[in-house]
Amino acid sequence: MEMDSATHVKSGPLSQGLTSVKALPKKIATSIVDTAKHAKKLGRDDPRRVYHSLKVGLALTVVSLFYYYQPLYDNFGVSAMWAVLTVVVVFEFSVGATLSKGLNRGLATLLAGALGVGAHHLASLSGHVAEPILLGFFVFVQAAVSTFLRFFPKIKARYDYGMLIFILTFALVSVSGFREDEILELAHKRLTTILIGGSACIIIAICVCPVWAGEDLHKLIALNMEKLGSFLEGFGEVHLNKPSAEERKDEKKTPLNGYQSVLTSKNTEDVLANLAKWEPGHGKFLFRHPWAQYLKIGTLNRQCGYRIEALSSYLNSDLLAPEEIKEEFETICGTLSLECGKALNELSRDTKKMTKPSGVAQHISNAKAAAKTLNSLLKSDLWADMELLDLVPTATAASLLIDLLICTEQIYEAVVELASKADFKAEVEPTVSPEMRKQGQMEGDKERPNRSKSSKVVDCCPDNDARHHVIINVDDGSEPEVEKEGGIIVAEVAASSKLAPPPASTVNIQLA
Amino acid sequence: MEMDSATHVKSGPLSQGLTSVKALPKKIATSIVDTAKHAKKLGRDDPRRVYHSLKVGLALTVVSLFYYYQPLYDNFGVSAMWAVLTVVVVFEFSVGATLSKGLNRGLATLLAGALGVGAHHLASLSGHVAEPILLGFFVFVQAAVSTFLRFFPKIKARYDYGMLIFILTFALVSVSGFREDEILELAHKRLTTILIGGSACIIIAICVCPVWAGEDLHKLIALNMEKLGSFLEGFGEVHLNKPSAEERKDEKKTPLNGYQSVLTSKNTEDVLANLAKWEPGHGKFLFRHPWAQYLKIGTLNRQCGYRIEALSSYLNSDLLAPEEIKEEFETICGTLSLECGKALNELSRDTKKMTKPSGVAQHISNAKAAAKTLNSLLKSDLWADMELLDLVPTATAASLLIDLLICTEQIYEAVVELASKADFKAEVEPTVSPEMRKQGQMEGDKERPNRSKSSKVVDCCPDNDARHHVIINVDDGSEPEVEKEGGIIVAEVAASSKLAPPPASTVNIQLA
Repeated sequence: MEMDSATHVKSGPLSQGLTSVKALPKKIATSIVDTAKHAKKLGRDDPRRVYHSLKVGLALTVVSLFYYYQPLYDNFGVSAMWAVLTVVVVFEFSVGATLSKGLNRGLATLLAGALGVGAHHLASLSGHVAEPILLGFFVFVQAAVSTFLRFFPKIKARYDYGMLIFILTFALVSVSGFREDEILELAHKRLTTILIGGSACIIIAICVCPVWAGEDLHKLIALNMEKLGSFLEGFGEVHLNKPSAEERKDEKKTPLNGYQSVLTSKNTEDVLANLAKWEPGHGKFLFRHPWAQYLKIGTLNRQCGYRIEALSSYLNSDLLAPEEIKEEFETICGTLSLECGKALNELSRDTKKMTKPSGVAQHISNAKAAAKTLNSLLKSDLWADMELLDLVPTATAASLLIDLLICTEQIYEAVVELASKADFKAEVEPTVSPEMRKQGQMEGDKERPNRSKSSKVVDCCPDNDARHHVIINVDDGSEPEVEKEGGIIVAEVAASSKLAPPPASTVNIQLA
Repeated sequence: MEMDSATHVKSGPLSQGLTSVKALPKKIATSIVDTAKHAKKLGRDDPRRVYHSLKVGLALTVVSLFYYYQPLYDNFGVSAMWAVLTVVVVFEFSVGATLSKGLNRGLATLLAGALGVGAHHLASLSGHVAEPILLGFFVFVQAAVSTFLRFFPKIKARYDYGMLIFILTFALVSVSGFREDEILELAHKRLTTILIGGSACIIIAICVCPVWAGEDLHKLIALNMEKLGSFLEGFGEVHLNKPSAEERKDEKKTPLNGYQSVLTSKNTEDVLANLAKWEPGHGKFLFRHPWAQYLKIGTLNRQCGYRIEALSSYLNSDLLAPEEIKEEFETICGTLSLECGKALNELSRDTKKMTKPSGVAQHISNAKAAAKTLNSLLKSDLWADMELLDLVPTATAASLLIDLLICTEQIYEAVVELASKADFKAEVEPTVSPEMRKQGQMEGDKERPNRSKSSKVVDCCPDNDARHHVIINVDDGSEPEVEKEGGIIVAEVAASSKLAPPPASTVNIQLA
């Protein structure tokens, strides 16, 4: 503080002021350039933002024709204002939001207009002195009741804007009726212009580069699954590769922390699902698409994310284990994580393409096999030589990985449910002989030497590169033994672990 | 399906229809009663909702005086409509939201009105044919640019409504100027009525039972801390009590899962913090209160919540340990959890009362001592006899508890920072002699027999019941040794655990 004032006195307030005035144009130029860069980035990240801006401009210019074009103006006069007002207020980014606001506004205006005319009529019967008092009372009661109704969660979620317009229109119509004689004509003109403005918005929103909230929700859920999957694949690769300290430093730079946005995506998902319900069927999304199921998957994604958040600190630390089984232990943990990650990535791809999940069961069964091996490793007597304190992180990581397998299975089931509810189409499935698959698995079970990043993935999961072509049928039941064992193991470990094991019936579905 | 149609035919569509018509009044009555009950609950949960509804009714009735009262109507005429419109749209639940909308609306109307008059003047110079074309062009460009600006996150957070009104007013003024000759008078009347409507909202919002967004944020953060603390206290009590199976069933009924709402509270916190910035100083909250610090604490609360989410499945399961140290192990885990919970509850109370956290350091130091004992228990050779697989849940729970201690410390530091930034007052501190405290600790270290719920808490933490009276000074430094050791232990375990240990300097602050 003292230093500051000393410098201040030294340089003099005048010269300082001059300096800052001189620096002003440069500052302004810098901030303009920064803003332009920011705007460019915003537009490039999502070009629909630019289209939306142009669409709003277009809609507004179209409805202002009411003022410019004489025959239209003769019809509506000053009421044309309501068309402009409606366009500005109703036109939202997504079709769902625009429809929701438009329909809310239209219906609320109609209803409140009728009620307002009724209230005006009732009040006018009571004589000139009592009329304003009665009108004031009506407005007060209606506003208070409607405002309170807006606190009901269901009304708030879907009809909040409608309630607002209801209050507004009732007050305007009933009160202005006190001064206007031709109240019916006023209400009629206002309603017509609002309907025209709303229709203009809805038509332009649907016909010109439409932005569907439902599609955004669909993509968001798939993207979140992918983010979780990428972390788990990355975690698996790190522990399979056992990279040196330098390599690990580089590894840190890869953005595996994308999963963090999953943890706080609940609000966005809720909003999008609410808007999606207003949208008509479009493209692959029919009317009454099971949007609620997406929210269910979203919740499971977050459950998975919470575990990953806990696991993330083991990303770059060794998992301690007895020397004899150290390598095997790390490999098995890595494989378990990698297979869960692949399953999630596969589920994300299937969801994006709207095909029935088909390649996922194999990854989950691989992960279950790894969990089984992990289980038997944890039973080994060799651990007795180590202090439990040193093993705490190892045990925690193992437990989290098994939890994550259960989370992955739950997400898988939820996606399968979505696929059946939304009639996802099946992918074309070339058959694979059990021999081929078995051979692949045996290769996967071999101890892996250090490998380059590209070769390893193929090695550990033989059907990886052929992911989209070699699809193993979930329902063929050709490997009941291994899968069933894997399932039981997971259920066993889970019973003493954090998450409830999937109920027996669910296990059967997975293993059928 | 077939069953259904069979029944249908049997009873006949007519008789079915009659039955449902007969049931209709009953159904309607039931739904009315349900709605009334729901409304009563909403009102009882937060009576401010009722006050808010009445306030909106009041404001609306006040501004409709413009229509009823002749001298006012002579002045403003139909423009009085804008006052009604402003009240309905601007009056929000909290003062912050009302101020934000009111100021946004006022400033945007002023600015856009001026620009609109300018645009109208410019266009009118270009002749009668070019005028509508030029006006349309202006409206299009302005709407497109302003709509795009609404995508800038900073503008969206604080000035979204202002941008909307800017587009609206510019379009209305410039376009209706095409038909109105006295555009300046029109703009002036409109602006005046909007200002009057906005002022009415703001005055009523502030003067009649005000709802402050900042206070809500303050309470929400404190409540979230309390929810986390209650879970940890409950977890600790369960493991200290070792209740029987029946008792445990009862225990399940106590609502310890309140912490779950903490996990998804980010959006609410962000919104409240944004609104709080608009509010003037009030009560204990001065202007420029450090609202951002609340968001920081909120983030730490969620970090803590993620760990609790993982810990929650151990709430009703035994923590396996060798017979010789089983009881001690469970007691220590319980104490660690209980002390963290007490620290969080104490922090919550201090935050609510806006006093400097003073009793918390003792709980954290108790928790650190417990962590130290836990640490030495984990080092015991006795564990070697058990299978690691059986110990996985035990190790995970221990690791999570230690993480939670670190989380608790971080929250403590953040609250201390808040207390210093927001000038929380110090609580009056009766002194406690070191002897008294030592005695209390020794009592706490004794092995506890099964006790009733009420006695146990006092037993395990001697200063519990005197929480608000016997405050131990954090800065007296009378027990540096124990505390320092605790700190080192925690840091040690943390290094091999999930969370980064608090930096050395921070540890010193806590232990100073």
